[in-house]
Amino acid sequence: MTYRAPINDMLLSLNHGAGLEAAVKAGHYGDFDADITTAVLEEAGRFATDVLAPLNRVGDEHGIKLEADKVTTAPGWPDAYQRWTAAGWNAVSGPEAFGGQGLPLAINAACTEIWSASNIAFGLCPLLTLSEIEALDAHGSDELKKIYLEKLVSGEWTGTMQLTEPQAGSDVGALRTRAERAPDGSYRIKGTKIFITYGDHDMTDNIVHFVLARLPDAPAGTKGISLFLIPKFLVNADGSLGQRNDIYPSGVEHKLGMHASPTCTMTMGDSGAIGYLIGEENKGMQCMFTMMNQARLGVGLEGVGIADRAYQQALAFAQERRQGRAVGKDGNGSDPIIVHPDVKRMLMQMRALTAAARTICYATAVALDVSVRATDAKTRGLAAARGALLTPIAKAFSTDIGNEVTSLGVQIHGGMGFIEETGAAQHYRDARITPIYEGTNGIQAIDLVTRKLAANGGESVWALLDELSGIVKRVETSNDPAFGTSGAKLRDALASLERTSRWLLERVASGPNDALAGATPYLRLFGSTLGGCMLAGEALAARDLGKASGDPERYVTLARFFAENISVQAGSLEKTVMDSADAVNGADAVLLA
Amino acid sequence: MTYRAPINDMLLSLNHGAGLEAAVKAGHYGDFDADITTAVLEEAGRFATDVLAPLNRVGDEHGIKLEADKVTTAPGWPDAYQRWTAAGWNAVSGPEAFGGQGLPLAINAACTEIWSASNIAFGLCPLLTLSEIEALDAHGSDELKKIYLEKLVSGEWTGTMQLTEPQAGSDVGALRTRAERAPDGSYRIKGTKIFITYGDHDMTDNIVHFVLARLPDAPAGTKGISLFLIPKFLVNADGSLGQRNDIYPSGVEHKLGMHASPTCTMTMGDSGAIGYLIGEENKGMQCMFTMMNQARLGVGLEGVGIADRAYQQALAFAQERRQGRAVGKDGNGSDPIIVHPDVKRMLMQMRALTAAARTICYATAVALDVSVRATDAKTRGLAAARGALLTPIAKAFSTDIGNEVTSLGVQIHGGMGFIEETGAAQHYRDARITPIYEGTNGIQAIDLVTRKLAANGGESVWALLDELSGIVKRVETSNDPAFGTSGAKLRDALASLERTSRWLLERVASGPNDALAGATPYLRLFGSTLGGCMLAGEALAARDLGKASGDPERYVTLARFFAENISVQAGSLEKTVMDSADAVNGADAVLLA
Repeated sequence: MTYRAPINDMLLSLNHGAGLEAAVKAGHYGDFDADITTAVLEEAGRFATDVLAPLNRVGDEHGIKLEADKVTTAPGWPDAYQRWTAAGWNAVSGPEAFGGQGLPLAINAACTEIWSASNIAFGLCPLLTLSEIEALDAHGSDELKKIYLEKLVSGEWTGTMQLTEPQAGSDVGALRTRAERAPDGSYRIKGTKIFITYGDHDMTDNIVHFVLARLPDAPAGTKGISLFLIPKFLVNADGSLGQRNDIYPSGVEHKLGMHASPTCTMTMGDSGAIGYLIGEENKGMQCMFTMMNQARLGVGLEGVGIADRAYQQALAFAQERRQGRAVGKDGNGSDPIIVHPDVKRMLMQMRALTAAARTICYATAVALDVSVRATDAKTRGLAAARGALLTPIAKAFSTDIGNEVTSLGVQIHGGMGFIEETGAAQHYRDARITPIYEGTNGIQAIDLVTRKLAANGGESVWALLDELSGIVKRVETSNDPAFGTSGAKLRDALASLERTSRWLLERVASGPNDALAGATPYLRLFGSTLGGCMLAGEALAARDLGKASGDPERYVTLARFFAENISVQAGSLEKTVMDSADAVNGADAVLLA
Repeated sequence: MTYRAPINDMLLSLNHGAGLEAAVKAGHYGDFDADITTAVLEEAGRFATDVLAPLNRVGDEHGIKLEADKVTTAPGWPDAYQRWTAAGWNAVSGPEAFGGQGLPLAINAACTEIWSASNIAFGLCPLLTLSEIEALDAHGSDELKKIYLEKLVSGEWTGTMQLTEPQAGSDVGALRTRAERAPDGSYRIKGTKIFITYGDHDMTDNIVHFVLARLPDAPAGTKGISLFLIPKFLVNADGSLGQRNDIYPSGVEHKLGMHASPTCTMTMGDSGAIGYLIGEENKGMQCMFTMMNQARLGVGLEGVGIADRAYQQALAFAQERRQGRAVGKDGNGSDPIIVHPDVKRMLMQMRALTAAARTICYATAVALDVSVRATDAKTRGLAAARGALLTPIAKAFSTDIGNEVTSLGVQIHGGMGFIEETGAAQHYRDARITPIYEGTNGIQAIDLVTRKLAANGGESVWALLDELSGIVKRVETSNDPAFGTSGAKLRDALASLERTSRWLLERVASGPNDALAGATPYLRLFGSTLGGCMLAGEALAARDLGKASGDPERYVTLARFFAENISVQAGSLEKTVMDSADAVNGADAVLLA
């Protein structure tokens, strides 16, 4: 079962759910020609189906190898990477000054979903490169940009993000890697990093490592961290590759999934790796946040992609596999299992969760685009706040549902789902890292409550709720019976979200542990409400577009399913947030007895 | 990290949550000496910790091998199995007439949890043997019992259940394996079975296969299925082993988890395997249901066991791993992650779900015990109906939460959770089969709605709701502030469960597809409400017992957490069942577009 990019769904989501069309019409995208969107996505979809999807299983089975300080990827992978960069896919949203196509992040978000869906372990490599491009472009010196940026934009070289050390995971401030100033203005970095994605590989002839380290006189904690660019091979003045730098993969992890993506322990040895400062000394966290925000959206899109892949496979299986009879049917022979309501429910759950997460991610990308592209400062500011608010939801909601949806994919396959050759199990394994890396989903929830919600007295949340309320009003006034009880369900969900937000906002100040105890259910409440309203908005747009959207009835039913099955959880989640803090914070009596 | 059986929790659950003590006091257990319960569980716990738990990882890494028609298990496994049977563990609840100890199923249920927690792939083997003992004891001829039952009770030989064929999974009636009558009264069976757990292995010198097959003149579907006993080695008149029978493992599956448990394709060849009829011709499904009900409870207990294992490991990690500071703490150094409310929430979620599933499973076992042990026919009848009602919930709720809890276990480990050597990932992989085998959880939900709820106009459900309502009343009148809002939450949940049950009962008749569409959320609603009330009942009992229960405060806080976080979902689930049938059954517009 291969993967086909759901172009119609993606276009409706991007243009209408996520608001790209409105933003373009409002002039926030300058001279961007929206007509090319369809062509880009179709071309990306073809590449993914033809080249990347067939390598997904190969990568899982073959994995990677570390021998003599070198990592070798699975057969066919280096070639696929060359073809992918040659076709310009790494450069979609890269800065034009350095050879990028300068297309919106929103377009690239849709592409990222496609790469992740077809081959999540492959897509992970450029995802980190793109974050590095962003950070280098924003914080690097002109000289570093000149040497490295074009190669990173084209994908000729890839990037890594090196934060984690054994004692410093979520707690980045605890890192110990040391940097010393060298007389020539460069630095010598010594230490060991773990869990470094694509820390080494054979797909490119150079790798550009971004490494967090501490200067000898640095303050403790996150205020004493600096960011360094450390090339695998030093670059000569003429741009050719020079000597091998002292940064080597010293181990690779044996993981639950993502077998084709090397996760390396990186050792910078006794002589020290030669590194160059990005931004200012001791201001590395700021640069790293630039990378992380971009990467968080990227990981959210991994959740969307792997969910859609699992859905497509489960749908095909449910149409083929025959077991039992539909209610009311007589005679011999059995029906495809898709006739059974319980199977329909699982497939709808998969598709609805995926569609909602997609739009949340795309909307985040549109906000980030507008925050830098709009000509008007106020518009940029509001969009920046919107993007900041949506990023933790895009990351955590999408990856949580990625796990739920891939699990449903296994379930629909029955016994075959537990057998590795079927492929459903690989999606389930691969998806499991996404709620963990780039900031665990617990950290996203804390970020949402303590920073994003609280940032401006809740202003960003109230503004969003107003917009969503407008969508619900249009559902209600449509009087379309195909929406079922969607209007009432979404109205209730919005009310729950508003009450819960106000309660948390008060508690962030008055009882922070109460607010923290409710962070995860709050994020879920937010995602379930937001997703439901956004899908309703898409359904309304599809009705307006008529046949041009593909099939309006489909989108209305999908939105209805989401509202009646998922947004409806808001009431319970509201109670969980507000009433269970005592039980959570009194847990020591249970846990430590 | 090893496993230690939580004896105090298990005893409170068994005696008070599940009602064993009351049933014993009422005389339903005859002369059973309840004082031995603690000693049995402690001894089982020691064996599990010392012998089985250390082999769990070995089994996962080594897996099994099929060579020259023989399956070899992992190093140490045959020896552990011999020690386990020699200690009498296979015979705990076996019939005394055949060498069993005749202890209650409820005691064995607790033991099954212990075997599953310490080594789920190991525990799966005797789980099927026990089901076979039950079926043979109930339906076998005296001659077959004489030859086979004692060896199965002791565990000297193991059993298999062979239903599945490529075209016949959930739809057992579609099976094609053929049986022909032989002149000597035996049968010759030809065909291929797949997914046969422990279909072959080297832990015993014989294996007793129970195989479903079709006679040449059998009616179509499930009414034409007969059950046959097919020994791996024929048994001579003196009890010694004779010739090798024509039933061989022809393949083994490469699975997501449970690597140490061989999942075989079994081929009965051209000459036909020699088999003996169990029960009557064409009445095989009835015998198989005897096995399946027992096995379904057993699989539910696997869910409980693997959940508890994952919880214990995550708790230990959260107490050791230091990252970040607790809110309000200053100074250097970091705290164990268990100080963070979001981590506390995850651990409480794990423990509360596990505890509730445990009591639901134990209560099912008590009901099944009373249904055969009580002297009074009416009591037996009511208990049988209770056991029938609880079985699908015990199976599906417990295995669903087994997956949720093992996933939380991975999450708490952060990046380390995705690394295989940590062990959290193995639990996550192993758990994934439990919602699938012995009847998928979707089938359990359909069974609950269409057979168990509807069996007697809902009588079994109303009787249970009455009992649960009594518990809630005691919570309310306790006026113990430590219960928080538990009383109100459980009262609301019970009301949702009752309304939803009545609605479904009506729809089972008037609109079966509407009822089927709501089956899965209904089962979850049932489990969440039942579990919440049962944990509240345990907490009340712990308060009455005082220090004798270990620690009353712990159980009250745990019950409160469950009510405020999980039972509280009932309101949303009620709406899902009642309002989303149209969206589910109208899904073709979405799925088949």
